[in-house]
Amino acid sequence: MITTESTSKRSGTPARGDSTEKYNVRLHDILESAAHLFAKKGYHNTSIRDLASELGTSLAGLYYYFETKEDLLFLISQNSFDSVMSSLDKKFSMEHRPHEKLRILVVNHMQYFVSHLDAMKVLAHESESLSGSYYEIITEKKKKYIRLVEQLLMDVLRNERARVPKRTTREIKIAALSLFGMMNWTYTWYDPDRRNGSAHIQKIANEMVDLFLRGFTAHFCTT
Amino acid sequence: MITTESTSKRSGTPARGDSTEKYNVRLHDILESAAHLFAKKGYHNTSIRDLASELGTSLAGLYYYFETKEDLLFLISQNSFDSVMSSLDKKFSMEHRPHEKLRILVVNHMQYFVSHLDAMKVLAHESESLSGSYYEIITEKKKKYIRLVEQLLMDVLRNERARVPKRTTREIKIAALSLFGMMNWTYTWYDPDRRNGSAHIQKIANEMVDLFLRGFTAHFCTT
Repeated sequence: MITTESTSKRSGTPARGDSTEKYNVRLHDILESAAHLFAKKGYHNTSIRDLASELGTSLAGLYYYFETKEDLLFLISQNSFDSVMSSLDKKFSMEHRPHEKLRILVVNHMQYFVSHLDAMKVLAHESESLSGSYYEIITEKKKKYIRLVEQLLMDVLRNERARVPKRTTREIKIAALSLFGMMNWTYTWYDPDRRNGSAHIQKIANEMVDLFLRGFTAHFCTT
Repeated sequence: MITTESTSKRSGTPARGDSTEKYNVRLHDILESAAHLFAKKGYHNTSIRDLASELGTSLAGLYYYFETKEDLLFLISQNSFDSVMSSLDKKFSMEHRPHEKLRILVVNHMQYFVSHLDAMKVLAHESESLSGSYYEIITEKKKKYIRLVEQLLMDVLRNERARVPKRTTREIKIAALSLFGMMNWTYTWYDPDRRNGSAHIQKIANEMVDLFLRGFTAHFCTT
């Protein structure tokens, strides 16, 4: 389900007798097309009329699925965070070593990233375009994800039996944000059309996590 | 001078009898306002009329300085790269150690970055909006900057007397792009209004370069 309690108040929900699955498939297509247009033309420069034209449907047909353009931006953002976190939860269940959990997180993030480049570009460029409770919900999801990385970094240090002085919590935040920078900047240079994309991005993700973890442990465990 | 041979063909040049300095100051103001609007509303969603209104001037008055909106995007981009490179050249002249040169580059980049957040946001979001020779010129400047970082990274390894197998040139490219990610992603989380901004960003830049360099040398000098 893409819709949540908070969105069902503002966006459409399946009418009686309609198939929930059919509804979800159609909503998924709408969100993909919206992400494509937002990434290409910018959120503010895209109209619902553009979206209807891209999908070859009527405006009325679209408004059955959402009420405002901001609903779409919210659903794209929420869907991205929820998908990344849910696939991560599954992969984490069999692993307890913090180094390896961080590696899994980076690979999972990059794999989602390159297979959803439009949505990731929208998240990077348009996060300030959300307002009110939509902005708050997405900001909370983003913070939760960053806190998870910070927690893993603390666990990495504890695992190395390194003493972690209080002052380093700020430095760990900078390290976590640096890691997000390494991962997220990829959208500016990665070629999504290359062959063996999945194996290639896995290789890049592993190189990044090696580079990062070696620097991180060397930096915090020797000072 | 902001204008170059390539731009003077398309954008305005000082009329006879006009003061070049006055012209440059005015052009600088126009570019700052344009960067502010492009960052806030997006390039495609900003009109020259919006810019005239922001500057409290007439459309005719603006078209004395440039011919098209794309001229503005090009000049903002060119000016950013040229300013970063020229201040870097000065700072490099007294330093020969590759580690320290990389540190200088990161601090220089971050200092420019946080004092020109609008322009940096425009560079990050709108680089694909340039076309033709404008696109080629800016892409070449970007490549030159990335090659400089790759060269410094090679020098760091040579300085460590590390053997650098051929296969690592691709890995060095990933490392350089990771470093740019760490630096450039800052625009999504850095608060430009904080006190002691310059000292603060210098501290962050030093932490990033420590983290990066330790990881980089550990990774390449032990495998």
